Amino acid sequence: MASNKKISMAVIRRLPRYYRYLSDLLLMDINRISSKELSTRMGITASQIRQDLNCFGGFGQQGYGYNVELLFNEIGNILGVNSKFQTIVIGAGHMGQALANYGNFEKRGFQIVGIFDNNPKLVGKEINHMKIQHMDNLDDFVKKYHVDIAMLTVPYDYAREVAERVALLGIKGLWNFSPMDLKLPYDTVIENVHLSDSLMVLGYKIRDKFPGKT
Amino acid sequence: MASNKKISMAVIRRLPRYYRYLSDLLLMDINRISSKELSTRMGITASQIRQDLNCFGGFGQQGYGYNVELLFNEIGNILGVNSKFQTIVIGAGHMGQALANYGNFEKRGFQIVGIFDNNPKLVGKEINHMKIQHMDNLDDFVKKYHVDIAMLTVPYDYAREVAERVALLGIKGLWNFSPMDLKLPYDTVIENVHLSDSLMVLGYKIRDKFPGKT
Repeated sequence: MASNKKISMAVIRRLPRYYRYLSDLLLMDINRISSKELSTRMGITASQIRQDLNCFGGFGQQGYGYNVELLFNEIGNILGVNSKFQTIVIGAGHMGQALANYGNFEKRGFQIVGIFDNNPKLVGKEINHMKIQHMDNLDDFVKKYHVDIAMLTVPYDYAREVAERVALLGIKGLWNFSPMDLKLPYDTVIENVHLSDSLMVLGYKIRDKFPGKT
Repeated sequence: MASNKKISMAVIRRLPRYYRYLSDLLLMDINRISSKELSTRMGITASQIRQDLNCFGGFGQQGYGYNVELLFNEIGNILGVNSKFQTIVIGAGHMGQALANYGNFEKRGFQIVGIFDNNPKLVGKEINHMKIQHMDNLDDFVKKYHVDIAMLTVPYDYAREVAERVALLGIKGLWNFSPMDLKLPYDTVIENVHLSDSLMVLGYKIRDKFPGKT
């Protein structure tokens, strides 16, 4: 990991996207690609791509392009796609159930091992072969199964309280879907997801493309 | 809108975040803020903030800070928060139901007026005061209600087909949750959401902070 310390978070945030595109290229048996071609496919400028990929070694050669497989593997290593994370979902509403049912997370190493809620109407219901458990079981479960990550889909008013609770239990990461940007005075790493942000960008693009129509 | 044309999409993508933070400041009756304070709160460098906000006029004065309300209103105008978009959800699985139930979208101008699926077990079920409709009704509905946006939560194999269908019906924007980066040869604007990308970044941060623990 030491050699990756220099990569900025801005670049790290773009890596999953490179990883997806490179994966698609491999499926199409494309073994070499120029920054220009990759640029056209991904809608990122070629100079940005060269700058990003130079951050970790530069797998491209002038006039020869990138070795897709090498680059794919290297980005996968940086992202830690072979790591395994014991993951729970807290909040078993529609969003929590959607996350618990989403098979692609497990492919990426995020194994969902439990789902929790404090609503008695939901407790006991089966979601993706797991019974929704009451929040009273949370502390024991987190310790017993060495849970790494909690996906948080609880309402705004509970978000901070629940986040503090799991942070104190030693959870390493929080994937927060509640509409509050969480910051905690603990080691727990937090990634806040704001779906509305992406929707507002869509709204902007529509108004930009169809002026006067909305 | 003309004066906004120069703002790059990279800046536009950060605007919803500024908008959220400024909204919080207003709720706390904070009327002025320096780029340095905003930087600390948001975890963006002060120079990035100055650069971003200078793109559309510069509401800050050296040594005096930004007028929070002016900035909030201006960003809201650029993002078009007062626009109204007639929105439907296609795919009434857990994710589709979560989106249809998510009240915050309506506050942002995205009114969900219909939800569609082709699964007979789901058709007729009531979600957020709407009955899930069969896909056979889609074309008539889109035309009758002048639908602007479709939120797409259908499986990978159907994504392109459904996207083309609604694009040909004249839908202006697609908010795509299927794991396929959609590109279409039509005017329809697309915003692809890849939840796994954010999760992979969380995984990276955890491995970076807790080396050797996962």
